[in-house]
This record gives sequence, C-alpha cells and structure tokens, in this order.
Amino acid sequence: MEGLYNTTIAAIATAMSDAGIGIVRMSGPEAFSIADRVYKGKKEKSLLSQKTHTIHYGYVMDGEGMIDEVLVMLMKSPHSYTGEDTVEINCHGGVYVVKRILELLIEKGARPAEPGEFTKRAFLNGKLDLSQAEAVGDLISSKNQYAHQSSVNQLRGNIKNKISEIRNEIIYHTAFIESALDDPEHVSVEGYGEKLLITVEKLMGQIKRLIDTYDNGRIIKEGIRTVIVGKPNVGKSSLLNLLLGEERAIVTDIAGTTRDILEENINLRGISLNMIDTAGIRDTEDLVEKIGVERAKDFVEQADLILYVIDGSIPLDENDQEIFRLIGDKKTIILLNKSDLNMVVTREDVKKLYFASNPSVRGDEETNKFTLPVIYVSTKEKMGVNTLEETLKDLFFEGNLAFNDEIYITNIRHKTALQDTFSSLGRVRDSIESGMPEDFYSIDLLDAYESLGCIIGEKIGEDLVNEIFSKFCMGK
Amino acid sequence: MEGLYNTTIAAIATAMSDAGIGIVRMSGPEAFSIADRVYKGKKEKSLLSQKTHTIHYGYVMDGEGMIDEVLVMLMKSPHSYTGEDTVEINCHGGVYVVKRILELLIEKGARPAEPGEFTKRAFLNGKLDLSQAEAVGDLISSKNQYAHQSSVNQLRGNIKNKISEIRNEIIYHTAFIESALDDPEHVSVEGYGEKLLITVEKLMGQIKRLIDTYDNGRIIKEGIRTVIVGKPNVGKSSLLNLLLGEERAIVTDIAGTTRDILEENINLRGISLNMIDTAGIRDTEDLVEKIGVERAKDFVEQADLILYVIDGSIPLDENDQEIFRLIGDKKTIILLNKSDLNMVVTREDVKKLYFASNPSVRGDEETNKFTLPVIYVSTKEKMGVNTLEETLKDLFFEGNLAFNDEIYITNIRHKTALQDTFSSLGRVRDSIESGMPEDFYSIDLLDAYESLGCIIGEKIGEDLVNEIFSKFCMGK
Repeated sequence: MEGLYNTTIAAIATAMSDAGIGIVRMSGPEAFSIADRVYKGKKEKSLLSQKTHTIHYGYVMDGEGMIDEVLVMLMKSPHSYTGEDTVEINCHGGVYVVKRILELLIEKGARPAEPGEFTKRAFLNGKLDLSQAEAVGDLISSKNQYAHQSSVNQLRGNIKNKISEIRNEIIYHTAFIESALDDPEHVSVEGYGEKLLITVEKLMGQIKRLIDTYDNGRIIKEGIRTVIVGKPNVGKSSLLNLLLGEERAIVTDIAGTTRDILEENINLRGISLNMIDTAGIRDTEDLVEKIGVERAKDFVEQADLILYVIDGSIPLDENDQEIFRLIGDKKTIILLNKSDLNMVVTREDVKKLYFASNPSVRGDEETNKFTLPVIYVSTKEKMGVNTLEETLKDLFFEGNLAFNDEIYITNIRHKTALQDTFSSLGRVRDSIESGMPEDFYSIDLLDAYESLGCIIGEKIGEDLVNEIFSKFCMGK
Repeated sequence: MEGLYNTTIAAIATAMSDAGIGIVRMSGPEAFSIADRVYKGKKEKSLLSQKTHTIHYGYVMDGEGMIDEVLVMLMKSPHSYTGEDTVEINCHGGVYVVKRILELLIEKGARPAEPGEFTKRAFLNGKLDLSQAEAVGDLISSKNQYAHQSSVNQLRGNIKNKISEIRNEIIYHTAFIESALDDPEHVSVEGYGEKLLITVEKLMGQIKRLIDTYDNGRIIKEGIRTVIVGKPNVGKSSLLNLLLGEERAIVTDIAGTTRDILEENINLRGISLNMIDTAGIRDTEDLVEKIGVERAKDFVEQADLILYVIDGSIPLDENDQEIFRLIGDKKTIILLNKSDLNMVVTREDVKKLYFASNPSVRGDEETNKFTLPVIYVSTKEKMGVNTLEETLKDLFFEGNLAFNDEIYITNIRHKTALQDTFSSLGRVRDSIESGMPEDFYSIDLLDAYESLGCIIGEKIGEDLVNEIFSKFCMGK
C-alpha cells in the first residue's frame, strides 16, 4: 500500500535532552533510500533489500566522517505507525548527536516534519481515527493513572466504537426515511414517527450521559484546579509541602524526573491537583492579605476546588468569616490543621460561621444540610492525607473512580460536537412531536450524523485536521 | 555467550520529558522472559522464540489492563550493546507511560539499573574497552562539532589503538629483559641498553605529544571558560546577546532544545564558550565595580579567555588601565566596540595603555611584540563575530582545528595516567644512562605498562570501574 504523500518526513522523536538513547524517525516513500545514503553496516548491504521489522547495527556516516554508532529499525508500509515506509535510527541520546543526524537526513532528501505530522499521516492513511489520534497526544501528556487509562481506552477505540454505533443507528433511520420518500408505494412511514421518537430519545440519553462525563473527564485529563486559602501561619505551606512530599516520594526513585513532573502538579493516588499559579503558591502564606480580596476572588473563581486551611488550635475570627464569604458556594474542603494540638475549633463552629458568612444559604442551615467536608489534619504529624484523598474522590467522582469500559469525554472538541448532536436530535424530536413531515427529520438526523463524524474525523475540513495535529509534539 | 551477570536490569533510556517515543531498556539473562510476562502481540507468540534483531508490534499489559501500544526490539546475546540478551520497549514517550512500564518490568523480575550500568556491562563483557566506554558518556554530552568528533574517534578506538601500540612495544622489551635474566646463556643484553634508550625516548616523545593535546582536548570537550570584562555601558551585554543570538539562530529550528543547550554555553562554529557563571554574566555590566577587583581577579584567574570590551568611540581612561592590570598576561581578546560610530581609540592606544599597565612586560613593547588580538566589532550592526571566531581558532588551536585521525586527550584520568607513564619511562631512561642493571629497567617498564592499562581498563580496581560508570546517565 502506498501512502498519500510523496514527501519523506524526518524528526527527532525522543525528548531533547541528553540521555542514553535518542531516536530520529523518518516516514515516507524515500525513507529507506535516504537511510541507505547515510547508513553503513558491517557488511555491504542495502537497507532497501532488508525485511520489514528488522534491526540493523552500523554507523551513520556523513561522507567519510562517522556521526554515530546506531541501530536502524525498518518498518515497511503498511505495517508501520504511519502506514508508510518508516525508518527509526536509534542513536546515542545526546542533543548534539540527534540534531546532527536529523540535519544529515534532511540534507539527503527528507523534509523536517511538522509537529504531529507522523500521527496526521497515520490518520490520513487510515491507521487511526481522529479520536484515536487525539488520544496519542493525551497519552503522552498524561500525568496520572486515570488520565493515562482514559487516553489508552480512547486509543483502543472506545470513543470511536461508541460514536460509530450511534451513527449507524442514525444513518439507518435516515436511509429508511429517504427510501420511503423516494418510493412511497413500497415503503410506508405510517406510524414511523413514534418508533423514531423512541430511538431519538434513547440516543439523546446516551449522548447526554457522554456530555455529563466531560467535567470529570477534564479533571482526569487536566487535573483539579486547586487553590489553598487560609489565614497566615495556619499551615498552608506545610500542607503544600506535605502533599508535594508524597509526590516526591513517588517521583524521585528515577533521577531527573522531578523537574518535569512537579511544577504545578500534585498527584494524589491518581488524582492530579493543579495549583493554579506557582508564583501564587509560593505566596499562599499570605494570599488573601497580600494580593487583596479582589484578586483572591479571581483565584477562587477559577478554581475547581478550594482547600481552606484552619488552625484548629485557635478560635475562628472575623478573618475566617471573610474567607468564608470569599468561598461562597465553591467546591471546598476544610482542613482543620494542628489536630496534634489541643483543638478548640469544632465542626459545629465551622458550620455556624459558614452560614453566618453566607446568609443566602441560611436555609440550608435550618435543614441542617451542611455539605462542606471538614477533615482533621496535622501537617506536623503528617496525618490526614489519606482522608483528603478519599474526600477528593467523593467530591469529584462520587467515590467511584474505577475504569473498566466507561467512556470519559476529555476533549472540549468532542463535547461541543456531542452538544451539537444533542441539539440536532432535539430538533428531530420536536419535529416529530409537532407532526412535521418526514423530510424535516431527515435533515436534522444528517446534521447529527455529521456532528458525530467530526469526533472520529469523517467529513471534516482540512483546517481542523491541521489544527488538531499542530498541537502534537515534534516527532509524533 | 553468557554475560557475567545473573540479574536482569531495566531503565528508561530516553530523556524524561514528554515526547513522541520513549524507550525502556532491559538487559540480562531474563530480559526475554520478563518481556514475555508483559507483552501481548496480535498473535499468541513468545518473544523467547523470536529471532534476534527483530521488531514486534503489540501491547504492554498489566494483567488485563493495557498500559501502552508498543514496538518491542529484540537483540540476543552476544549481538547487543551489553553483550547480553537485550529488549528495548519503544512506547509512547510520556513521562507517566515510560515510568509505568519500567515499574511493571521491575514488578516482573527486573532490577532497576544503576546509572551507567548498561555500559558497565558492555565493558565487563568485553564489548568496549574503558576509553571507549568513557567516550559514550562524552558523546552523549558533546555540545559541538569538535567535542562530538573527538568522542566519536575515541569510541571507534583511536585512543585504545594508540595505547595498545605503545603497550605492545613496552611489553616486548620487558619480555626480552626477563628472558635474558632468566636465560643469560642464550639471550645477551650486551649493548641492549642503547637500543632500549632509543625506544624509550621515542615512546616518551609520543606520550608527551598526547599529554600536550590535553589543554585543547579539555577545551574541545568542556568549552573555553570565558569572562567578559569592560567598563559600564561599553556593550558587554549586547555582545553577550549577539553571541547568544547566533546560537539561538542555530538552535531554535527545533522546538524545545533551547533550555538544555544554552544556559552557560555559547557555540561559535563548533567552539564552545562557557561563561563561568550565569549569575556573573547577568551582572557583567558592572562586574568590576560591583563585585570588587578581588573577586574579578578570581574570575579572570579561573578563565581560559578574557573578552575585554572597549567602547572605541570614547577615549581610554584610568579604569581601562586598571582592567589591563587585572588581565595581566591571561589569554585575552580585545573587542573595540561601537565601530559603527566615529572611533577615537586606535590599536596603538590599546597597546600603549596595556604596556603602561603591565610594566613587567615592557620589554615586549620595545621589541614591539604586542600579541593581544584587537578586533573591531559593532554589536549594534552585528559585525565582528566572524573575525572573533577566526581569532578564537588562532588563539586556541593555532588556526588548525580539523579532525582527521588526530587523537585529543580530553579526559583528566587519561592525562594523569600518561603523566605517570612518562615518569616511569623517564626512570627507565635515567637507569640506562646511569648504567643500572637491567632488572631496574624492567620494574619501571612494567609500571609504565600498567599506567597505560588504566586508560583502556586492563588491570584496574573495581572501585575505579564503579566510579567511572556512576557518572553515566540512567539507561546507558
């Protein structure tokens, strides 16, 4: 099978810092012959004449000058990631070396790949649908167990399969209506509206459930945007260190990972907390005072979650009242810190002050529905993190964050397409209910079909394809 | 061939940040069977039964859970880097994914590799000598053309071959003396001293030449330690930006490389300038004033090269005189900046002030041997960088920095061993010249032989081996 492209692209596929191994990857009709121009094996042999899926030891040469000792991996079309002839050169992983090899391949006829171009070719050559191609990017950037699992499921085609299933039902009904309109003598639409209505409502229900997974899906993929608030010296920095410490214990068993993983991301048993702003975090000890209530409000507004740290060993005061006002009805976990000391603040105190600060929710106090979780922690004794983790799962995933075959929508593009589908199907329902003629259904059904097609990359404009792939990293 | 080890080691061999491809590498007797425990191909097949140097598409599975879609590369002992059975798993290059796969391999029986352990095994299994093993590390960290070429030559064995050649001559003579002492009736040492003296002096000459390459060798490998000095507002920062700008133009054609390459390293056509201290550089605009003459002296003392920037559009003054005193006889390039303006400072002015500031070298003035290069530059018009590059080559490599088969000693360990060899051979020469008996030669010849052996890793202690390999990065 020939690919769709005449050009051969090349890029560095591994991360650009010094490491044991680096890979320079080439894909396209000339991949083998370009590799032959720079490769010199122990024996005189042409890579073109070698079998697919074989590895060849030798040297990359620039004329008489040796650039590196390498292993060359050959994968022939269509049995490669892109579906095209592909050569991967495994070289020593120094930045200078991989760059030199890439430059050499370009000198010998390859074109530098654009970001994501290998995966774009895989998509356009039919090796992946669009949702799977997007999953590749998500998989690479996944930072925790759930984000990883969600993108792996998507890569395996769970979204593609679900979307295709719904599309098949829609196209079946569209085809039925079209044939009835074409050939009313043989195909009757008598009583068809009621039947279709049942299907449409069923599909709307399925799509609604998919849309509803988006909030959790986004949190799985991107993490929970979190802000820590509290008065000075209540232990906010200690809490942050405690959470970071847990993370470090996981990360530092492999040297060199810390810099890339930590930054703003704390990983608690697979749930990522993203601190909105590192600079902000460094200053959290006096967040409210220093940057003023207005800016603190902005932080709180943008957050998915507030962690409100209270020193449980000293009474609540008017500053706590102000913080409660700030929080309002945002998702919040209250951490009663210093539980190793003599505690003077009770859950009841917290509840009273909360309702006093938010009179608009006073009704809730009367019905005794105080829903903010209050957790006793001791940053000093490193206690309470487990409970915090459990509470996070309750708060964001109803305690049930186990992956089997559930589909989570993690991509805003998919969500938008599903919403469009939902609207189109809603119009079909309305048309049926108001007794409109069948050709009205057909138009909206086709719209729904097309919106769903966007998710898996059927019938979509070239621009959208380019935009999606340009988000990829180089060499993928 | 079996390797020396019973354990199977695993490590991430690519750099730890998100990228298209990551590699987890395993080496040792269990490499194939451990891979079989996590690998699931399209067909049911055991990796153990596959041919060497083949590539297998499939999945890494943790029980029923899929971790990633991968290519598995198989290399059987002895045809691998380490000489042992080796499996490389090419997976998606996300930090989370590669870590998960490594963890899984460890769970299934591999041991985490220590830094450099793959190359250590290659050495201990006889795949590389010690100088070649060290070249692997140098190759990975090489930042410019010459450092790269030098490490590639070393990897190809040019140091190993040269050292072995000298050792062979030494051992030949040692053997001759030993047999003469053992069997004086048949082997005569009559007149042998004179013959040996010729050889010893020849070898000392060769070793001296190798030692003499070290200064340039170190500069090739590590870069030229450079300090920019000059009065305020003469254009020191602009010069730095100009030099950095050249570098950026080379680097930024590939996204994401800047962070690792730049920092303190400026690459001018293959010659690296290392600015001694970034913090220092940022402050160079007032280096002399701010940190005081004493500390400036320290900087200058540590430097291989001073770039002294003078504003050519205003006359020299007593501050310049002070800077000249500071520089003394250090290797210096004088940059007459602002050559786009009306220049009032001439080469003659610079020379006069230099000798006035350094009365001890006045003799030179009289013989008119003013050797400091003076270059006209304009940081504004971006002029003069080419001349600076040429001047650097003249100053450090006598204008001749072309690699053919020259050997550069770039490793302080090698230099020390060569110096020891030189001393031992010197003692042989002295013994011959003072008419000592032949068994005296023999002892020192063996010392020389052993010192040279250190370079290629024959007869050296376990401790030294460990120390050398622990400097390696993980996964190599």
